[in-house]
Amino acid sequence: PGIRALADYERLAADLMPPASWTYLQDGTGDGLTVAQNRIAFDRIGLLPRILPDLRNATTQLDLFGQRHAAPILLAPVAYQRIAHPDGELATIRAATAMGCGMILSTLASVTLEETAAARAAAAPGLGAPPAALWFQLYMQEGRADTLTLVRRAEAAGYEAVVLTVDASIKRTAFALPPGVEAVNLRGIARPAHTSQVLGPILFGTPLAQTTPRWEDLSWLRGETRLPLLVKGVMAPDDARLAIEHGADGLIVSNHGGRVLDGMPAAIDCLAAIAAIVGERMPILVDGGIRRGTDVVKALALGATAVLLGRPQVHALAVAGVAGVAHALLMLRSELELAMAQLGCTTLADITPDRLTPLR
Amino acid sequence: PGIRALADYERLAADLMPPASWTYLQDGTGDGLTVAQNRIAFDRIGLLPRILPDLRNATTQLDLFGQRHAAPILLAPVAYQRIAHPDGELATIRAATAMGCGMILSTLASVTLEETAAARAAAAPGLGAPPAALWFQLYMQEGRADTLTLVRRAEAAGYEAVVLTVDASIKRTAFALPPGVEAVNLRGIARPAHTSQVLGPILFGTPLAQTTPRWEDLSWLRGETRLPLLVKGVMAPDDARLAIEHGADGLIVSNHGGRVLDGMPAAIDCLAAIAAIVGERMPILVDGGIRRGTDVVKALALGATAVLLGRPQVHALAVAGVAGVAHALLMLRSELELAMAQLGCTTLADITPDRLTPLR
Amino acid sequence: PGIRALADYERLAADLMPPASWTYLQDGTGDGLTVAQNRIAFDRIGLLPRILPDLRNATTQLDLFGQRHAAPILLAPVAYQRIAHPDGELATIRAATAMGCGMILSTLASVTLEETAAARAAAAPGLGAPPAALWFQLYMQEGRADTLTLVRRAEAAGYEAVVLTVDASIKRTAFALPPGVEAVNLRGIARPAHTSQVLGPILFGTPLAQTTPRWEDLSWLRGETRLPLLVKGVMAPDDARLAIEHGADGLIVSNHGGRVLDGMPAAIDCLAAIAAIVGERMPILVDGGIRRGTDVVKALALGATAVLLGRPQVHALAVAGVAGVAHALLMLRSELELAMAQLGCTTLADITPDRLTPLR
Amino acid sequence: PGIRALADYERLAADLMPPASWTYLQDGTGDGLTVAQNRIAFDRIGLLPRILPDLRNATTQLDLFGQRHAAPILLAPVAYQRIAHPDGELATIRAATAMGCGMILSTLASVTLEETAAARAAAAPGLGAPPAALWFQLYMQEGRADTLTLVRRAEAAGYEAVVLTVDASIKRTAFALPPGVEAVNLRGIARPAHTSQVLGPILFGTPLAQTTPRWEDLSWLRGETRLPLLVKGVMAPDDARLAIEHGADGLIVSNHGGRVLDGMPAAIDCLAAIAAIVGERMPILVDGGIRRGTDVVKALALGATAVLLGRPQVHALAVAGVAGVAHALLMLRSELELAMAQLGCTTLADITPDRLTPLR
Ligand SMILES: Cc1cc2nc3c(=O)[nH]c(=O)nc-3n(C[C@H](O)[C@H](O)[C@H](O)COP(=O)(O)O)c2cc1C
Ligand SMILES: Cc1cc2nc3c(=O)[nH]c(=O)nc-3n(C[C@H](O)[C@H](O)[C@H](O)COP(=O)(O)O)c2cc1C
Ligand SMILES: Cc1cc2nc3c(=O)[nH]c(=O)nc-3n(C[C@H](O)[C@H](O)[C@H](O)COP(=O)(O)O)c2cc1C
Ligand SMILES: Cc1cc2nc3c(=O)[nH]c(=O)nc-3n(C[C@H](O)[C@H](O)[C@H](O)COP(=O)(O)O)c2cc1C
Repeated sequence: PGIRALADYERLAADLMPPASWTYLQDGTGDGLTVAQNRIAFDRIGLLPRILPDLRNATTQLDLFGQRHAAPILLAPVAYQRIAHPDGELATIRAATAMGCGMILSTLASVTLEETAAARAAAAPGLGAPPAALWFQLYMQEGRADTLTLVRRAEAAGYEAVVLTVDASIKRTAFALPPGVEAVNLRGIARPAHTSQVLGPILFGTPLAQTTPRWEDLSWLRGETRLPLLVKGVMAPDDARLAIEHGADGLIVSNHGGRVLDGMPAAIDCLAAIAAIVGERMPILVDGGIRRGTDVVKALALGATAVLLGRPQVHALAVAGVAGVAHALLMLRSELELAMAQLGCTTLADITPDRLTPLR
Repeated sequence: PGIRALADYERLAADLMPPASWTYLQDGTGDGLTVAQNRIAFDRIGLLPRILPDLRNATTQLDLFGQRHAAPILLAPVAYQRIAHPDGELATIRAATAMGCGMILSTLASVTLEETAAARAAAAPGLGAPPAALWFQLYMQEGRADTLTLVRRAEAAGYEAVVLTVDASIKRTAFALPPGVEAVNLRGIARPAHTSQVLGPILFGTPLAQTTPRWEDLSWLRGETRLPLLVKGVMAPDDARLAIEHGADGLIVSNHGGRVLDGMPAAIDCLAAIAAIVGERMPILVDGGIRRGTDVVKALALGATAVLLGRPQVHALAVAGVAGVAHALLMLRSELELAMAQLGCTTLADITPDRLTPLR
Repeated sequence: PGIRALADYERLAADLMPPASWTYLQDGTGDGLTVAQNRIAFDRIGLLPRILPDLRNATTQLDLFGQRHAAPILLAPVAYQRIAHPDGELATIRAATAMGCGMILSTLASVTLEETAAARAAAAPGLGAPPAALWFQLYMQEGRADTLTLVRRAEAAGYEAVVLTVDASIKRTAFALPPGVEAVNLRGIARPAHTSQVLGPILFGTPLAQTTPRWEDLSWLRGETRLPLLVKGVMAPDDARLAIEHGADGLIVSNHGGRVLDGMPAAIDCLAAIAAIVGERMPILVDGGIRRGTDVVKALALGATAVLLGRPQVHALAVAGVAGVAHALLMLRSELELAMAQLGCTTLADITPDRLTPLR
Repeated sequence: PGIRALADYERLAADLMPPASWTYLQDGTGDGLTVAQNRIAFDRIGLLPRILPDLRNATTQLDLFGQRHAAPILLAPVAYQRIAHPDGELATIRAATAMGCGMILSTLASVTLEETAAARAAAAPGLGAPPAALWFQLYMQEGRADTLTLVRRAEAAGYEAVVLTVDASIKRTAFALPPGVEAVNLRGIARPAHTSQVLGPILFGTPLAQTTPRWEDLSWLRGETRLPLLVKGVMAPDDARLAIEHGADGLIVSNHGGRVLDGMPAAIDCLAAIAAIVGERMPILVDGGIRRGTDVVKALALGATAVLLGRPQVHALAVAGVAGVAHALLMLRSELELAMAQLGCTTLADITPDRLTPLR
């Protein structure tokens, strides 16, 4: 049957992807409490529409760091996209460009950041649209020189922002990458490892724990680049404050899609407290469980400037490559417009907290 | 086995109706959150009876806009009833007349509004009962002249009120009407369409979004007819206020049976706040999820003057035509009397908020 | 396997009883919301034990209207017990007598009230125990003379109290009694009937609704008998007040096991508010969903003097007759002692509200 | 496939253990409400991480009664471990020693307390680690002399603390121990019994109820030993106060794994109120439902000094003997380190209540 919602791509991708890849993509850590929260939280937020609005100048457009976005929806950094489709991140950036949506390329992309930037440049003119935003998601490397190399490459390739992910410095996975898929951007960079001698240190005291990034590393990074710098993985209001003090230009409220520490609340449930602290000072993005246009509206009503889409981009990529991702973005934006119209919101600024009401 | 409750008609209709029609009838939009809320909300409202009442003058009668109703139950406007039964709306009005219950005919009825009015007139005398109320549900048309034509026709045919539905100006459906079923009242009226060129506007900027009705259209309509004018689809208290200011004579609290914007709260959960604003100024009706006599009681205790019944009329129509709808109304009214008796309420006015208590 | 709890009798009875009888016994009215509440409410009440108590003088004994009860557990009035076992209420009273627990005989018993009293008298001596309490549950009859006849018969037969049930004057059932089972105590008494002519009155205006008992009937009854008079079916605090004013000597908080008005809260959830009004003035009993010794403790902690057991007596009766009912009472009392010991309660008076805590 | 979490051992043990033993091990009392609460409660507690922490000196070490523990995790007293594995408690103490985790031996151990102590002594040197803590869990016996004999034996064998369990003096079980498994430490000690003559006393008035331990017995015990004395089974804040007054050196908040009184709240839900009363005066341990490193963190954030692990040790023992238990402890400690790292906690003292947040 037809594909009418992001959930349809998820359903189809479940059959198409090899089980190990599917598990890697979908599963949360631990008992999946946080993955579940990410959805439950959205489903409990109710929408209270206003009737008979004037929709004649309605628009979903957004300006972010001086760049135009067709809608407040970006593609979240998701590693190793060639797991889902041979073209991997190249397909994704082409779809994003076609739809006027921004994309954040992962440090662990399975395509080089230069190739991705080139694919954007190549796709844009044919579409008669301005190139969509392309940001680089950074994982700090053990050596600062290695980190800096990544940042310089991103700057050189024309990326418009750096997103420093701070919530996954220590993360466990049992997934063995399929042959031919690897973190190509990290070729030649040493990565710290767990010690696993029996009766030796488990995590604390191992090189891994000794070298995780600290606040001082954020300050250092801030001093090294002129690109806008966003911190991804902020959940506590006090960390939002610290991130601002250490030079962040934007925050991404995220629990990493429930993949890191099980028991974290839904990102959407942490948003309002952070928005209260940040105010109008900088953009706040949020991700985790966004699957519907109504979810986008809920996030914006709670203080988000825009949202990121994680797993659904991979579902669509697995099912139909570039066309799938473009279609997924189209459906989501279309649902967003419909929801705004039905709520009586003409612009993103109309999406205020008084449109929300708790559900049973 | 026997048909003892509206749910039995639903069960039977599920087997009788073609799957596509059934899906169209039953489904909510999106993930069905709001459809579910409409029932969950009723099920969580508890009833606290008073004992040893004097039931000797008990009655369920109600006067609305100067017309007598046997019970505070009307048939909601439901489009295209010939999907369920060849007689469609004609069967429905006959059943309503027999039971002394009002009916609201949809703009999208599959029978003309004139024929429906004629069927009422023909049925009433044989029943020895005064004709039941017949109201016309209006969807504003792209051109005001077309809208006015509909209103004039309804006035001429003897409809006693106009119900302007404001919550479904933009609504998506994938349902293809079966052959022979159409919106006969709209023959000859142009309807706006979505633009669906790829990379063109999705909704915002299309003719559809440019022409949705606005508050000024309500004022205009108010000036055009002397019939009582109800606004259907009010959920926010501020909109109740605006509707009154713009000339409404009655409000219908409704989320359109969960068919428009997923994530809306149950209509019953929005009722009390609106009743607090409206007070005794005008009747307030509510629909969405009414399936039991106890639900009617709960609605009235929360401030409703009467309730509308949506899908169940179609279930009964599909199963047994005019007899089904009449029987469904009889069962509901019978449950209402039983509930009132057991609660110790003699008249509708006895159904006060102190009879309610939250359930676990 | 073994029978270790009341639930085991329920399980076994489900297989033994004819489906129609089982449905009649078990089902609640409407959608079963209230039946469910009766259990959910108990399951959400938590128990907070105190440790290292002195249990040397522990006892579950209770004095009620001057009569000794082995435990604060009585058998609720349940109609037509010969549905479950040929000996019907005779088996039940024998079991109650053996266990020192009181029994309340229904007006709708399938054995005469005189035979039941005789069975108690015959059983007691052999057991070397004082006869257990035997009360008569009264449904008011259409004519006061008929009602009075019942009361006089109960007085003459040695019943120690009258329980006037006020919550089921109008109650629907579709159950056809099996051959040989009838309300023998009502032989010769006329019973009002529903009018069911189509388009005639449904309930309001029928003889049934015209003759339901009113507060004045309670006052009248109070004047007619010197037996303690309990009112069964009180749920609203204001009705508790009125019942006291009209001469009640005891109250039974009950929703009739969820069999009358669907949507009523759990009886246990209405208890505390009523206890707050009644104070120490008179005994308060409660029923609905009592299945465990811990439920008895919860009821007492919330202000009950004792509890009634409804359906479980019939389950045990169906499975094993007199031995079953006696065993069921033994298990429940045994669980009660265990719970009291583990909670650190030596007497019923030790079971105070501070032993309760909400569960998740 | 692989064993990655304690739940995997549970799954495997379910297939390996005989059904009767499995039921004995797993089941809670009554309807299992409390067993369920023990897990539900943890799953509803959310964790709010802080980002970019300095993990260079991170450690899970803990000093308790002057002894070093590798992690704040001890093995709870669990009776009759030879049910699960022929080596029983000997395997368990070897695993605990290998992992630097303490163990509490049950009075009802299926191996003598002297053999257990000897096994610890024998295992420690080979591991090059200091011997892990070994405490003795005491059930008071009917005669004080018998109780004292147990305590003296534990002292002589080098146990470092006595844990008096007060919540299971009266507890029902229908489990028949398999041949060859018995409470070897109680050989030659008389045990009180239930009276079960029909119509005789059930529990109250039997020898069992007459001899349950009382507060005065705690005072007496306190005077008899110089070992640290912990009271296991405290749930009410007032009992915490009394336990301190009667000489306890530590408290264990526990509902005995839901095996005693059904309806008790989760132990974790009683912890904070007790911690508020105890303050820094003494260690507070908690058990019941600990299955994940994140559960350990939640317990510590709510005021626990350490946690006990009950059933999971038996699951691992049944599956893989000493290696299983050691591996289970390793996994749990490893999860704990991971959780602390991801939460940004460097030491146990960093695990403060502000890291918690309710989940939906
Ligand atoms: C398979 C997968 C890989 C991911 N890889 C990265 C990554 O490399 N860097 C990063 O910052 N976030 C990564 N994330 C997290 C996403 O950026 C995003 O926070 C998350 O997926 C949002 O939740 P959602 O999947 O429910 O939309 C990954 C998520 C998934 C599912
Ligand atoms: C199949 C269907 C068609 C409907 N058509 C209309 C309509 O034409 N006009 C309108 O105002 N409401 C329409 N409604 C909404 C109903 O009037 C009513 O608000 C809703 O069905 C009430 O919820 P219920 O079905 O749970 O009783 C329709 C509902 C259904 C189910
Ligand atoms: C089959 C059945 C018949 C009953 N008959 C009577 C009755 O004749 N009179 C009455 O006062 N209550 C009657 N009751 C209600 C019980 O007295 C009692 O209130 C109820 O069963 C308690 O709930 P429980 O069944 O959950 O314990 C009846 C209940 C059942 C299940
Ligand atoms: C099979 C079994 C036997 C137990 N035996 C004892 C015992 O002898 N003494 C004691 O104090 N607690 C005993 N307990 C309770 C445990 O010490 C502990 O409180 C409980 O198991 C913790 O819950 P958990 O199993 O969910 O981790 C036993 C528990 C189980 C499951």
